[in-house]
Amino acid sequence: MKKTSVKAVAGNGLLDRRSFLMSGIALSASCSLGPLAASASKPGGVSSQSISESFPEWMKVPGHAATEYGQPSAHESQVRRHLQKSAPETSIFSIWHTPIENQRGIITPSGLHFTVNHNGIPDIAPQRHVLMIHGLVERPLKFDVDSLMLYPMVSNIHFLECAGNTASNAVSLTSLDQSAQELFGQISGSEWTGIPLKHLFKEAGIKASAKWVIAEGADGGSHSRSIPLDKLLDDAIIALYQNGERIRPSQGYPMRLFVPGWEGNLNIKWLHRLEVTDQPAYTKDESGLYSDILEDGKIQRFSFHMDVKSLITHPSGRQLLPEKRGFYEISGLAWSGYGKIKLVEVSADGGKTWARAHIESPILPKSLTRFSMPWRWNGTDAILLSRATDEAGRVQPTRDQWRAQHASYSFNHYNGIQAWHISSSGVVENCYV
Amino acid sequence: MKKTSVKAVAGNGLLDRRSFLMSGIALSASCSLGPLAASASKPGGVSSQSISESFPEWMKVPGHAATEYGQPSAHESQVRRHLQKSAPETSIFSIWHTPIENQRGIITPSGLHFTVNHNGIPDIAPQRHVLMIHGLVERPLKFDVDSLMLYPMVSNIHFLECAGNTASNAVSLTSLDQSAQELFGQISGSEWTGIPLKHLFKEAGIKASAKWVIAEGADGGSHSRSIPLDKLLDDAIIALYQNGERIRPSQGYPMRLFVPGWEGNLNIKWLHRLEVTDQPAYTKDESGLYSDILEDGKIQRFSFHMDVKSLITHPSGRQLLPEKRGFYEISGLAWSGYGKIKLVEVSADGGKTWARAHIESPILPKSLTRFSMPWRWNGTDAILLSRATDEAGRVQPTRDQWRAQHASYSFNHYNGIQAWHISSSGVVENCYV
Repeated sequence: MKKTSVKAVAGNGLLDRRSFLMSGIALSASCSLGPLAASASKPGGVSSQSISESFPEWMKVPGHAATEYGQPSAHESQVRRHLQKSAPETSIFSIWHTPIENQRGIITPSGLHFTVNHNGIPDIAPQRHVLMIHGLVERPLKFDVDSLMLYPMVSNIHFLECAGNTASNAVSLTSLDQSAQELFGQISGSEWTGIPLKHLFKEAGIKASAKWVIAEGADGGSHSRSIPLDKLLDDAIIALYQNGERIRPSQGYPMRLFVPGWEGNLNIKWLHRLEVTDQPAYTKDESGLYSDILEDGKIQRFSFHMDVKSLITHPSGRQLLPEKRGFYEISGLAWSGYGKIKLVEVSADGGKTWARAHIESPILPKSLTRFSMPWRWNGTDAILLSRATDEAGRVQPTRDQWRAQHASYSFNHYNGIQAWHISSSGVVENCYV
Repeated sequence: MKKTSVKAVAGNGLLDRRSFLMSGIALSASCSLGPLAASASKPGGVSSQSISESFPEWMKVPGHAATEYGQPSAHESQVRRHLQKSAPETSIFSIWHTPIENQRGIITPSGLHFTVNHNGIPDIAPQRHVLMIHGLVERPLKFDVDSLMLYPMVSNIHFLECAGNTASNAVSLTSLDQSAQELFGQISGSEWTGIPLKHLFKEAGIKASAKWVIAEGADGGSHSRSIPLDKLLDDAIIALYQNGERIRPSQGYPMRLFVPGWEGNLNIKWLHRLEVTDQPAYTKDESGLYSDILEDGKIQRFSFHMDVKSLITHPSGRQLLPEKRGFYEISGLAWSGYGKIKLVEVSADGGKTWARAHIESPILPKSLTRFSMPWRWNGTDAILLSRATDEAGRVQPTRDQWRAQHASYSFNHYNGIQAWHISSSGVVENCYV
């Protein structure tokens, strides 16, 4: 194998991607380069004898049948949504976190999509569900599912994130022994399909005085939010499908509002009412839970956008680097409610030096975006950071910068730079830098 | 509502998209424009009284809890994979069709992805599964799942299609009363994540005489195919993830070969062996089932690419247009194993006139690509066609053109233009033009 030298791009082992990949990843046993050589530490001539000896029992019998609706392997049953422990122990208000550190790519499996339910999941009979558009409109309208199915639809891959995602890192020095699922489990990515709301509003005829829309769900608590009309006319949809199939009960079956890039709880599930108004309704949730408390104690009542943010998923909290040293691919996700991700930088030395990560295509607006960076770990303490910049020029703040602008007990819309500490034994933990 | 005139772009009601959308879709009851007015045929002032009267029982009680791994609504249980009836009634060889006409967007839910199993689904213990690379290499290698997990991965959205998809339209005048699932159910789209094979081959050290690779699965019948080395070095991956989670048993858990744009059965599931050689092995399946029979009776032994193809999914076979006449959005999927889709044309008059369909972003290479076209159905017989062109300049042939180049009993790689006949009663049926 021709040896190519691998160039460093920043401190503590961050490597140039091209020269890393061209090097043959230096993985052969003869190179003795650590964990990535695990495969090669046990090679040897594969003779026809060793092949026949390697036949496991499942190669000697017919397999079983497929099913009408497939499921993951039983061997992957540890990859599950988990109920956030700090939320009330009730089915009424509950927060289920996605195992984001097990995800690869930018699509979250629908079965693992995070879900926050303010009043539990209603069991809606779809043929009786009605969406109403009323208020400041020329023609109040009602739609059932069948009639909506006839409208032109669009599909887009977008992230959805709860305003409270990563809240525990905002407010205090929480336990450092937390997984990415525990800290960041309220972010997911899907292909959402539905009807641009502008079509329905055009049909209803919006009056000149209209400025806001009160969106309400058909759940037991009628979760509702006030949303500026302009945003809904821009890119919001009545979502009927997620990842190619009808939206699931925990995501609002038979329909939800989808408001790309804006905080999760605005994306009203089980949507049954859109009231066009000239002012916000100051509903329970927008005046309380989902308002931000600033440094001077004042309330920033409406904070719609989810800001630019990123996370290294591999490696991340509670993972263990399987070898003492060697080559790893750092991989993670970045996203912004303001548009596309433009730049992700990674540091392996706690922020002293940074290098530009590779961003994987497709780079889509208001979508999870995958980045990666080759890294040679030298087996000593390291602190990994990622810092995303979006096309609007917004840059992730440090934790201290974010906290300086918010009250000590404020927790929504936290987007500080995440730090993972790697100990010399390979343990990965949440940390603050 | 300001009325905008809707321009025609081709015969029998195909409409200009921009003027159609700008028209307010002419959906209000006062326009009396048919099915899209279904919603508006029952509007009326929505008073506060009618709102309170409309509270269904699920708005009066708390909902139920989410689950650790979510499932679709029980109300959607009719959307399922179906076993192809013409295949043997056995779990050993089976073909499960995806309900492609129920899909929106370009992602197929993993639970509904089509699956062809030559020897059933083996129940593999992942910790004992080994991938071997041997033959014309400097260093034969073995990899277990854990060691592969450390390699750099890529993610891409690609289609996967069985060589035999739509075979029944190739060989004879089959029953016209068939759904898109029955005819086209062996095509699906997913985000696939895995390790570029070139990294592993670089590590193994490919010898100069190497030209082919024999890929073999760990199923009971050791399904295997010979694949040109150049393709595997180009864009093939060892796929470990599908749609963000570990690949499912019916898709090759714990790993499969993924060969973008090439016929499905080359994408060896439960992959356990890659033997680098200087010639093909002429395995059972490549010499038999998956070779194409040409018009002169000769065999075209290797036909790897899946050719440019398209399908209108809405409306499609067994669907019923719910109103006698009016506006519809024609929507469908196009794909090509040679790269990106460049153009999709639609005809509503059986091919006499054509118009360019709108192609939805993202337009990705070797991926399902969604197209749409507004249509005003006048309530009489119509024949809808779609014709895709890819960036390599390949154009879908007519059925007659395709059949002229193949033996009458040849059925693989059929990509003729699909025709749907709409009767005056709104019944949609497969037809030949």
